[in-house]
Amino acid sequence: MPTVDLNADMGESFGAWKMGDDASLLKIVTSANIACGGHAGDPDVMARTMKLAHENGVGIGAHPGFMDIAGFGRNRMHVPIATLQNQVRYQVAASVGMARSVGAEVRHLKLHGAMANMASEDTAMARALYEAALSVAPDLIVMVLAATAQQEAVKELGCAWAGEIFADRAYNDDATLVDRSLPGAVIHDAALAGRRMVDMVKAGAIITESGKRIETRIDTICLHGDTPEAVQIAASVRKELESAGIGLAKF
Amino acid sequence: MPTVDLNADMGESFGAWKMGDDASLLKIVTSANIACGGHAGDPDVMARTMKLAHENGVGIGAHPGFMDIAGFGRNRMHVPIATLQNQVRYQVAASVGMARSVGAEVRHLKLHGAMANMASEDTAMARALYEAALSVAPDLIVMVLAATAQQEAVKELGCAWAGEIFADRAYNDDATLVDRSLPGAVIHDAALAGRRMVDMVKAGAIITESGKRIETRIDTICLHGDTPEAVQIAASVRKELESAGIGLAKF
Amino acid sequence: MPTVDLNADMGESFGAWKMGDDASLLKIVTSANIACGGHAGDPDVMARTMKLAHENGVGIGAHPGFMDIAGFGRNRMHVPIATLQNQVRYQVAASVGMARSVGAEVRHLKLHGAMANMASEDTAMARALYEAALSVAPDLIVMVLAATAQQEAVKELGCAWAGEIFADRAYNDDATLVDRSLPGAVIHDAALAGRRMVDMVKAGAIITESGKRIETRIDTICLHGDTPEAVQIAASVRKELESAGIGLAKF
Amino acid sequence: MPTVDLNADMGESFGAWKMGDDASLLKIVTSANIACGGHAGDPDVMARTMKLAHENGVGIGAHPGFMDIAGFGRNRMHVPIATLQNQVRYQVAASVGMARSVGAEVRHLKLHGAMANMASEDTAMARALYEAALSVAPDLIVMVLAATAQQEAVKELGCAWAGEIFADRAYNDDATLVDRSLPGAVIHDAALAGRRMVDMVKAGAIITESGKRIETRIDTICLHGDTPEAVQIAASVRKELESAGIGLAKF
Repeated sequence: MPTVDLNADMGESFGAWKMGDDASLLKIVTSANIACGGHAGDPDVMARTMKLAHENGVGIGAHPGFMDIAGFGRNRMHVPIATLQNQVRYQVAASVGMARSVGAEVRHLKLHGAMANMASEDTAMARALYEAALSVAPDLIVMVLAATAQQEAVKELGCAWAGEIFADRAYNDDATLVDRSLPGAVIHDAALAGRRMVDMVKAGAIITESGKRIETRIDTICLHGDTPEAVQIAASVRKELESAGIGLAKF
Repeated sequence: MPTVDLNADMGESFGAWKMGDDASLLKIVTSANIACGGHAGDPDVMARTMKLAHENGVGIGAHPGFMDIAGFGRNRMHVPIATLQNQVRYQVAASVGMARSVGAEVRHLKLHGAMANMASEDTAMARALYEAALSVAPDLIVMVLAATAQQEAVKELGCAWAGEIFADRAYNDDATLVDRSLPGAVIHDAALAGRRMVDMVKAGAIITESGKRIETRIDTICLHGDTPEAVQIAASVRKELESAGIGLAKF
Repeated sequence: MPTVDLNADMGESFGAWKMGDDASLLKIVTSANIACGGHAGDPDVMARTMKLAHENGVGIGAHPGFMDIAGFGRNRMHVPIATLQNQVRYQVAASVGMARSVGAEVRHLKLHGAMANMASEDTAMARALYEAALSVAPDLIVMVLAATAQQEAVKELGCAWAGEIFADRAYNDDATLVDRSLPGAVIHDAALAGRRMVDMVKAGAIITESGKRIETRIDTICLHGDTPEAVQIAASVRKELESAGIGLAKF
Repeated sequence: MPTVDLNADMGESFGAWKMGDDASLLKIVTSANIACGGHAGDPDVMARTMKLAHENGVGIGAHPGFMDIAGFGRNRMHVPIATLQNQVRYQVAASVGMARSVGAEVRHLKLHGAMANMASEDTAMARALYEAALSVAPDLIVMVLAATAQQEAVKELGCAWAGEIFADRAYNDDATLVDRSLPGAVIHDAALAGRRMVDMVKAGAIITESGKRIETRIDTICLHGDTPEAVQIAASVRKELESAGIGLAKF
């Protein structure tokens, strides 16, 4: 039977503001993408979240984004690529050192938000950002949106990587996500989300809305945890995978 | 004959704004305290400055301060010590990784501005901040204001350290600096600044305004470079030390 | 029977992060202290909160604090007073114009967090900050912590003002608040909080923990709304005052 | 003979960092576009610059940009338009109140950097941003890049406006600026820059590189002042216009 990793974004609180239920998520996932202070997170939040992830045996990833706290890294920004590389270096470096200070280690990299979206459409950009991250931490495993330009980039680079699919999003036939504004784009039914993941992991393929199979390496499944409902879906996906006999472990 | 290190703050430009003449200073000093994005500096500035320091054979130091770009880290802030420790960890971590990405290494730590001033009056605070930095990079040499609470802290910790005096500031009899508002507090005469440093390094002591000698380890001399005049003084101090046969080298 | 105003801080969400239940609070209070983007709030949050306050007939106040989003304005900062005055001018100005753009008006001023605490201990500081605010909006009513240096300052200035007491905090005999770390400092019992307010408003005096009466103008009562429990206490205080026949209206 | 206004961006220092020679420019220009704390400027810089402009009889303009200090508002950002409108409201509001506090008044609006560039290509965006500014300060005169979508927007709105051309940039035949990377795009010859402006103002038309005339209202000429050389060109343009008998005055 195959084995798969479960990942979620966390450490996205900031100062006096809380976001997400990281403690609950850390009981469900096997990898945590922890914000680096660029789009969210701050030194206290990073230290606390990394410590908690480490105590739960969850793999720690650096999760850099546009340096835009006010916009949560969700707005596309046209920053010169050399500057963006340095911003990724900075955030990854901060993560690596913070992890060390709590006795842990950064294992993987996942880009956040608009930066991730742009990189999923632009191999050169994705490659430049991954190279930047690897110049700071050469052993990082790069998590990529399966079957996108991000995957092209890691193949070009020849670095270690993990392919990711989404538990709660429907796919188009070209492996892009169905636009959120369309019906069925976001899956709110926890049981359905779980069954889809079992099917895709077993198939080794993204199964699109139309039923098309896009063969791809599926190493990890992205879960969300920003709402109580999201945590429930995450738990349900995990349970469904376990029931189907699929192993759950860090990639 | 004794040997001494010459240090200066740099990498304090930010975005579109330039500060200091780092290229000139890097021909004069043997150690550079490079801002970490807390009070000044940004990822581009850090990368560029570290690269240039490395190419000039100048030792690189992390120079964390209060995370207050608008105030340049000059305003005293009463941040809970655990938070301040994480902020120092974050900045040191970012420095360590950025240095690695340009093929260089962070050798030392020097606190900036109001954070340094507060730590020079409070051994417990200094110690907490140094411990935080060392939790990220255990081999850092901690640069301390000679004969202050900072020096007490490194002695308590038993870590590697370097004692620092100022080229262009007069000292009170308790080893504190003469207040800037008083006549003679800041030395603008380049030749005089140079001769004072030769005397103190040879004496192994701070020589105060009144002529009193305070024996202390002098490993490094702080030069300033934020004005063209400051660069001239820095160059003059270096020349005077060389003429007196004092060796100039990284601590 | 006397009349009193009920005020609460709001508009303290920021970007992707929510704080407080402003919609519920706006059904309870008669004045809203709305963050100005200094310690919390952003242009979207300000516009939305001001519009909602206006629709509920609630008086709008500018609520400036230290320009320290990461610290929520809770850390004391030693900023030169002329700079602090400009920061208050900036925040008040932004509030006044934002209010205008939604068809509303800023009626009062209340300082936030550490800036308020420092001003409650320092008449000269309080006066300087109030003068700054009034230089932008001369008709503001200045809300002051009753019987503190803030009140001294408004008396010196001769401006319009409103005296404020806290619904959920016990008082020392010098009119300062009992330290949060001491038992009984914070009142969690909604009914008790309500009865205390009725007693103080009727007495025209702060009644301290020891039972001492400090006569003072009580124009407004500060309620909190950052937790569901806090909203309940706020509602309870309002109900208790209404039952006692005390009028509730903007000062 | 025609009359024209001369404008320049200023107040773009930030905290410890200086930019431009505002004092010299204020002897040359008749209108000043003063940063509002979004892309540059801070409360101290704003107050100081507005006071100096007012003392020199120079018209004060609000100069909002993307809220991106680190990028100086030069990077295109895809911020939802309603949010961008609130950001413009906030910045304009801050300007209006700061001006009031120094006894001055904001007369005009000019968008900055990437926000201006995007608005010059997109009438709907320009219109939305101008409407936002006017909702705060209904009497603002909107400065637009002549013959671009910005001009379309003010015509649609029916508000007061001023058409602007650049002293030191060559024009394409569609009234856009020649790309900076092409030879001749930026005019470094002060005398030439002056003569071009005389020709265009007299012609009431942009004269393109190829010699084509694009008739347009020319109310103001944009000068730059970020380098000593730029201040010289500015002074030269002013002198040339005066010699040609063209009046210089606020629009």
